[in-house]
Amino acid sequence: MKRKVILYISQSLDGFIADSKGNVDWILGNNENYDSDYGYETFIKDIDTVILGANTYKQIKNELSLDKWVYEDLQSYVLTNEKIKDSINIKYVNMNIKKLINKLQQEKGKNIWICGGANLVNQCVKENLIDEYQITTVPVILGSGIRLFEENNKKVRLELKDTKEENGLIIGIYAKR
Amino acid sequence: MKRKVILYISQSLDGFIADSKGNVDWILGNNENYDSDYGYETFIKDIDTVILGANTYKQIKNELSLDKWVYEDLQSYVLTNEKIKDSINIKYVNMNIKKLINKLQQEKGKNIWICGGANLVNQCVKENLIDEYQITTVPVILGSGIRLFEENNKKVRLELKDTKEENGLIIGIYAKR
Repeated sequence: MKRKVILYISQSLDGFIADSKGNVDWILGNNENYDSDYGYETFIKDIDTVILGANTYKQIKNELSLDKWVYEDLQSYVLTNEKIKDSINIKYVNMNIKKLINKLQQEKGKNIWICGGANLVNQCVKENLIDEYQITTVPVILGSGIRLFEENNKKVRLELKDTKEENGLIIGIYAKR
Repeated sequence: MKRKVILYISQSLDGFIADSKGNVDWILGNNENYDSDYGYETFIKDIDTVILGANTYKQIKNELSLDKWVYEDLQSYVLTNEKIKDSINIKYVNMNIKKLINKLQQEKGKNIWICGGANLVNQCVKENLIDEYQITTVPVILGSGIRLFEENNKKVRLELKDTKEENGLIIGIYAKR
């Protein structure tokens, strides 16, 4: 079976994935905790590869998880035009996302996670590369920030496959039609 | 008990309430039907008043329901600066939305529905007038159109009260914190 490409991400009720300063602490509810793993445990079971844009990679490495690479159990691909030496589980590639996905889908493996950020997501939406959208809605109107879906993308019709409600969050799983 | 102000509306997965031509046919899934009433029957039981912006009023009257006024069982308020003579169940008012809601909340009655469009919604969000948000997510990425929530609004924290999945749609009910 072809490896599925899955966008797994959280957005605010008004469609932002980061606030205007690029922060993502509101996803956890700031000082409260939603007491949910955002469906991660179930989601990650069928994933062995994660693709990140350069900015998201830097944010995770330099701000969110300084001690160790968060996805060390996965094969990570970072899309970047910087020359960085590959590490044991991170490959740095300067490649069109469509080509990378085509290449990965010709190899055997589990599903492929599109982690973000917005640039990468919107390239994938434009090319209709995403097979499944797993989107958690965080109950806040941020008012400004970085949008998950940019304008001037093409129309993409989806089909709702499953919904979960977890401690204050809605997780919607959609498939490409 | 104070009459609640409820935003009951549908948005696309990327946050639009109308496409770039102002059309709302995608809410019904274009040629397919979601076979859902979008929670309307339950929602409308506790509503006796609906507030509409001038453009939304015109769109309903001139495009969506030519034969009769769709909300004839409710008291409608249309915010407009045009001088129009009130009819039996429609009042045309040129009034700040906060003042109108204050006035209505001093009267006895059921809950108050903020119907749209985007201008009205965003005035209400800015003033934090909405007690409950009942938002249906339609499984389509439109790519462009009229946004439900404008940018440069202030941050509003909500609490998820209930979720329903109905034939391909997710309905989320959120309360002001």
